[in-house]
Amino acid sequence: MSTYPKIILGIDPGYGRCGFGIIKGGGADFFCITHGVMTTKVGSEHKDRLLEIAEDFESIIDKYQPSILVIEELFFSKSTTTALKVAEVRGVIMMLAARSGLDVIEVKPNEVKMAVTGYGKADKIQMQEMIKTIFGFEEVPKPDDAADALAIAWTGAGMLKY
Amino acid sequence: MSTYPKIILGIDPGYGRCGFGIIKGGGADFFCITHGVMTTKVGSEHKDRLLEIAEDFESIIDKYQPSILVIEELFFSKSTTTALKVAEVRGVIMMLAARSGLDVIEVKPNEVKMAVTGYGKADKIQMQEMIKTIFGFEEVPKPDDAADALAIAWTGAGMLKY
Repeated sequence: MSTYPKIILGIDPGYGRCGFGIIKGGGADFFCITHGVMTTKVGSEHKDRLLEIAEDFESIIDKYQPSILVIEELFFSKSTTTALKVAEVRGVIMMLAARSGLDVIEVKPNEVKMAVTGYGKADKIQMQEMIKTIFGFEEVPKPDDAADALAIAWTGAGMLKY
Repeated sequence: MSTYPKIILGIDPGYGRCGFGIIKGGGADFFCITHGVMTTKVGSEHKDRLLEIAEDFESIIDKYQPSILVIEELFFSKSTTTALKVAEVRGVIMMLAARSGLDVIEVKPNEVKMAVTGYGKADKIQMQEMIKTIFGFEEVPKPDDAADALAIAWTGAGMLKY
């Protein structure tokens, strides 16, 4: 945890859509390199959708060479079936991060809200506006999953010891 | 689904211990090649335990060259935290199976009980005795996770179309 600047990859894990955001910097000074979503083909076999995510994730690591993965922990919301599928994606991503030698930071949803807005129960609009401000975007980054991934990356950045 | 005999890998997914069982054959005629458990180091970082399982799983595929993975679906029991960790392992295993070109069959716990004992609510002892009989073991295979994995492999074998 000593070299500077750091490249940090934030992931908002999802099965059909998985947000990613890459930031670079140190201390409180990070800028956004890129953000987007990995998607999987509806109707493909389950195993093949997991492999699609794995391949996209490996391409991102190859291209941007992050040293830290920040990923959101999972809490149960409405559907346990959905939660289990998202957990499968989380497993794939964390295993591949370990294989590529990344450090992994897991963050809780309320930690992300707190880090970005100073308020653990911030709503989606407040979060998006703060992400726009933090990274100096002219518009709120789209899609939502990508903005969420940037928030997750930012939260991890704030947890680093310098 | 045409070559004969088939080599089938059954997995009883788990985080600390993950059972595996490999059977070979066709129709109703399968024998056990090997069985055992993959374990992960208690106290290791979460990502590293997922990587341990991935590496063990890849070694098993390399060594025994199965063409089919049979893996148990997950249902919530007592602990959702445990269920999520097991789902992460399932994700890793199914992704790696897809990468190695294996077909994947997912089976439900009651389907496994039905296939092995003819009774969807069979208990653990009944299951283990039947596994001993089916594969002609002198003793019930140990540990339990390995016996469960053989039951899972056997269930998948019964679902193949010849």
